[in-house]
Amino acid sequence: MPKNVIVAQSGGPSPVINSSLRGVVEACRMFPDTFGTVYGGWHGIEGVLREELLNLSVQSDEEIALLRYTPAAGAVGTCRYKLKKDQQEDFARVMEVFKAHDIGYFFYNGGNDSMDTAHKVAVLAQEQGLDLVAVGVPKTIDNDVGDAEFKLIDHTPGYGSVARYWMGIVQNADEENRGSCPADPVLVLQAMGRKIGYIPAAARLADPKREMPLQIYMAESKVSAEELCDNVNQQLLRDGRCVVVVSEGFDVGELGDVRDSFGHTNFGATQITAAQKVVNLLNANKLPVPGKARGQVSGTDQRSTAVYASVVDLDEAYKVGQQAVLIAVSGENGWMSTILREPGPIYNVRYDKAPLELVANSERTFPEAWISPSKTDVTDDFVRYAKPLIGEDWASVPVVNGRQRFARLAPVFADKKLPEYLPQALRK
Amino acid sequence: MPKNVIVAQSGGPSPVINSSLRGVVEACRMFPDTFGTVYGGWHGIEGVLREELLNLSVQSDEEIALLRYTPAAGAVGTCRYKLKKDQQEDFARVMEVFKAHDIGYFFYNGGNDSMDTAHKVAVLAQEQGLDLVAVGVPKTIDNDVGDAEFKLIDHTPGYGSVARYWMGIVQNADEENRGSCPADPVLVLQAMGRKIGYIPAAARLADPKREMPLQIYMAESKVSAEELCDNVNQQLLRDGRCVVVVSEGFDVGELGDVRDSFGHTNFGATQITAAQKVVNLLNANKLPVPGKARGQVSGTDQRSTAVYASVVDLDEAYKVGQQAVLIAVSGENGWMSTILREPGPIYNVRYDKAPLELVANSERTFPEAWISPSKTDVTDDFVRYAKPLIGEDWASVPVVNGRQRFARLAPVFADKKLPEYLPQALRK
Repeated sequence: MPKNVIVAQSGGPSPVINSSLRGVVEACRMFPDTFGTVYGGWHGIEGVLREELLNLSVQSDEEIALLRYTPAAGAVGTCRYKLKKDQQEDFARVMEVFKAHDIGYFFYNGGNDSMDTAHKVAVLAQEQGLDLVAVGVPKTIDNDVGDAEFKLIDHTPGYGSVARYWMGIVQNADEENRGSCPADPVLVLQAMGRKIGYIPAAARLADPKREMPLQIYMAESKVSAEELCDNVNQQLLRDGRCVVVVSEGFDVGELGDVRDSFGHTNFGATQITAAQKVVNLLNANKLPVPGKARGQVSGTDQRSTAVYASVVDLDEAYKVGQQAVLIAVSGENGWMSTILREPGPIYNVRYDKAPLELVANSERTFPEAWISPSKTDVTDDFVRYAKPLIGEDWASVPVVNGRQRFARLAPVFADKKLPEYLPQALRK
Repeated sequence: MPKNVIVAQSGGPSPVINSSLRGVVEACRMFPDTFGTVYGGWHGIEGVLREELLNLSVQSDEEIALLRYTPAAGAVGTCRYKLKKDQQEDFARVMEVFKAHDIGYFFYNGGNDSMDTAHKVAVLAQEQGLDLVAVGVPKTIDNDVGDAEFKLIDHTPGYGSVARYWMGIVQNADEENRGSCPADPVLVLQAMGRKIGYIPAAARLADPKREMPLQIYMAESKVSAEELCDNVNQQLLRDGRCVVVVSEGFDVGELGDVRDSFGHTNFGATQITAAQKVVNLLNANKLPVPGKARGQVSGTDQRSTAVYASVVDLDEAYKVGQQAVLIAVSGENGWMSTILREPGPIYNVRYDKAPLELVANSERTFPEAWISPSKTDVTDDFVRYAKPLIGEDWASVPVVNGRQRFARLAPVFADKKLPEYLPQALRK
């Protein structure tokens, strides 16, 4: 007898998160003896707790296919709800919901924290004798899932697309800055990635031959704000202009922190941004050339822009979703599907799996060896690593009547079988 | 005997400014008996003053054609240098440079201020008996050139592309906000346009049927920051989420102003942005739902992104450049080339001309009748006006080896014939 499926998402979205969702849904359809109805947890584990399950099996093939070009997590939603160890009621509720809807398979798409959640759910189900297979689907634009040696996973779906975004907007910013430098000689662009520098590093892909007056400041570079200003002013005296890419996690002092439920700084909600601080510092000390520094904070645009999605990333995200289904079909519990890079200079990947427990307790940092001695650049080894991930062509985002045509799923939810439930962490 | 040509740009760029440049260069090539060498003023009038003239006639046909897909003003540069009445030395220098390089035609691409400069140059040339034809080429993403009745010009090249950008990023932001609302229920996006609301208004193009929880705050709406917070909180109680588009010129109190040489606030360089102020206000008063407000400041990205360029806008910008050349061929002095919309519901334009003097002294505001009674939206009349300008398909920005292939002009400059000159306003 086939068992039903819940697929859910957690954490910040990416331009390809729906491509993995599509991979799971379409692959499940290929194994009708194994998988029954596929439900989407409406806003991740929060939707599971609330018994809000979007029926993905009744959606048309066309809308499911359109998930490929639909950025961010609007289709089934995501959350930042953490199932903490002491939230026993929450865990019990998840098991109840699984039982009530005959769920045999749980796919959880997210980063390290989400793999931790998936792992806990798998362990608890086993303890309770529940016939459940939990599989992780990796996702994070930050590329911080896995180990420092790239052995658990080479890169996470989402990173290639945000890297392509940064390639694109830094190319555009260079045209802007070169054209407008008599009035606006410094353009400061703030990149996401918290304290992990893969995203700002991707700015180098815009200029692999180092022809632009581009400086990259990752949190890891440990440059002080004063050194940054000195570097920029020197570039201005040399070239008359400078494009500065600064990590949101770059240390410029107090930002008026706001924390999310995982305890991380919510850099999008701080009272002042790193970019603004850098702009103010530069302008307060007067630039050595006429004009002013100006800033740009792409914010969530970098993780939700459809047209910058990398075709390589879209394909890989899809296959990682399919791979998760293959793991589930094998009946093995406690794995995350992965992408591994074949050795050698030619880019090729294969899809594999890694233990959820290992992934949950790992965090990948940016290799120190990939930061240039100048501390304002990354090395060619990084470029060789990241370049294949951004692909070649533009994503063919469909346009109807001038607007992007995104997937629109019908709001068909599973009938509720349990009493109302308010997730523990949301109670006053 | 053909006379030589200077084409120069002024003010903030757009994704289609180079399309107009291409229109001028390619059209001049069609009239070899009229036009000699075509020079680009390197960074606008500053380059004319410094005698820095890029030779556009020696550039390959292919690079000139690639200007179509090259955003911003990096090809020949722009400036914010204003030729003020009392800068007599500057005016005398311009005449000297024109004489030294046998310039008979001066094309100036920009907004109202630039048309004022072009007009002054034309008048002075006539007074001095110089055989010079000065023609304006309209450009501004703000769409504030011309008259309130749209009789001088229907819209300016550049506006359609920034409108398309806003259509695109608001669609993406809605996916992001719908997906991430349990943690990030409010997304505040800051739009350019100073105190003129055409750019924030274009956010409505993302949602002409009003299905998104979208609120638009233009400077003209005269809503207070407190009312804004109330509106957002009401939307949160109703829909659980809200996408807020706020003009950079929206009144939220002191921004730590920085002024440009035209005396305008340089909103990109302020010490704090309108979006940040709104985010801080919302978070300080605690939202009526869990989660936090977060902000996004696209900055110059909205005027320098290649892939969001409207194909309609690219074509019109090109034709406006060609039209300026036709005006010059006719030998008439003191005109700007224009776009006029044919009456009736079907979008059609014709290219015409308007007196520089009239344009220089005009400023188009956003029609009050196009602001909805709610003050957080625009009317369908605005949508009917703006919709045809964004076009249908994506611009076919060429990609080579993963990167956007922009035009690269060879740095071939005219030999200098005059002593060095420092523009008056740049002297200490």
